[in-house]
Amino acid sequence: MGERVADIGLLEGLATTRAIRRFLPDPIPEEDLATILWHATRAPSGSNRQPTRFLVLRDGPAATEARALLGESFRTMWAEKRAQDGYDRGSGAEDGTPKARMARTMQRFVDRFEETPVVVLACLVRHRAPHPTEGASVYPACQNLLLAARALGYGGVITMWHAVVEDDLRRVLDVPDGVAIAATIALGKPEGRHGPVRRRPLEEVVFEDRWGATAPWACG
Amino acid sequence: MGERVADIGLLEGLATTRAIRRFLPDPIPEEDLATILWHATRAPSGSNRQPTRFLVLRDGPAATEARALLGESFRTMWAEKRAQDGYDRGSGAEDGTPKARMARTMQRFVDRFEETPVVVLACLVRHRAPHPTEGASVYPACQNLLLAARALGYGGVITMWHAVVEDDLRRVLDVPDGVAIAATIALGKPEGRHGPVRRRPLEEVVFEDRWGATAPWACG
Repeated sequence: MGERVADIGLLEGLATTRAIRRFLPDPIPEEDLATILWHATRAPSGSNRQPTRFLVLRDGPAATEARALLGESFRTMWAEKRAQDGYDRGSGAEDGTPKARMARTMQRFVDRFEETPVVVLACLVRHRAPHPTEGASVYPACQNLLLAARALGYGGVITMWHAVVEDDLRRVLDVPDGVAIAATIALGKPEGRHGPVRRRPLEEVVFEDRWGATAPWACG
Repeated sequence: MGERVADIGLLEGLATTRAIRRFLPDPIPEEDLATILWHATRAPSGSNRQPTRFLVLRDGPAATEARALLGESFRTMWAEKRAQDGYDRGSGAEDGTPKARMARTMQRFVDRFEETPVVVLACLVRHRAPHPTEGASVYPACQNLLLAARALGYGGVITMWHAVVEDDLRRVLDVPDGVAIAATIALGKPEGRHGPVRRRPLEEVVFEDRWGATAPWACG
């Protein structure tokens, strides 16, 4: 089952699994990869149909081609987002601000995308037409994957940035019609650390009895 | 933070969180509910936009009306599924088979739906038109919710069975346009136990380098 970070508790793991985009060059041993994916597959799916498939991209010939396509796509998507979301304006223009740090991390992530230790495409074998709730059978598995990675000392991030090159990607990887590429997950050993995440206070996102009605017990 | 089941590890939690549909009548103390929801909100979302809202239904006036609607919807959906999937044919007709046990659990779940200790609607505040990948920003939080419930000795299940009554439900609960009801989650103290889940072997769901290419290291 590979080397584990000493016994992280379930609640602690949920609370401290950050999006990781800066990786050390270390590969992920196959037994750890198997452990991570096995725990991903423990997630629930509609009618336990288990429609998720994990396509692992390391250094095979198709993977290498796919990673180059993805790198290109990620750089395009980030350049658009950087401009649109004003990452170089306001506090983004000042060194050391959270916005500037985020921009630097993102730029590095996309610039070095091809060096990401492991890339996993989470694919959904559809049994009906595309639907907004179909993700209930694939994204819980993606979350389990990130949590299991955290348990073994790795980290990663779920992205949708394969969108620009999806047609080419499907061709290179022989992804059949009727299968959706639901997410591209980057995985590796973090250069930084896991830790607390930045989220809205509970009172903004929990309602009781009616939409918009805050729950006095839901705070923090 | 409420009473915890003694220190479940992260990997163990991922491996043993079953769908729970049979509940003891015990309520969930508010501090436990807050802990569960807080951990749910730690999940990632696209651009950290955090579009998920949790609408908790307990015994308020709107909740009572909503639970009655949901109970009706769940009974309709299960009756359809029971007939369509042949739960009363083949091994389903024999007492004690897994199929017959599943049918009994489902029947009880829908018959007693109104008594479910806590019902949570996971709602998605949309920032664009409905899309098959929008679930990447809501279902990881639903999975965290179930895992956090497990950590505190509770359990639950994600369902889509609000579909039949969605219009009435939105009216009763004041759910605005532009907000999707992404899942109905039933929660409570399990009558049975958590434990290993039934899943396909890893070699059927993990590919490397190309679609359909099994990975020798991915077994178990």
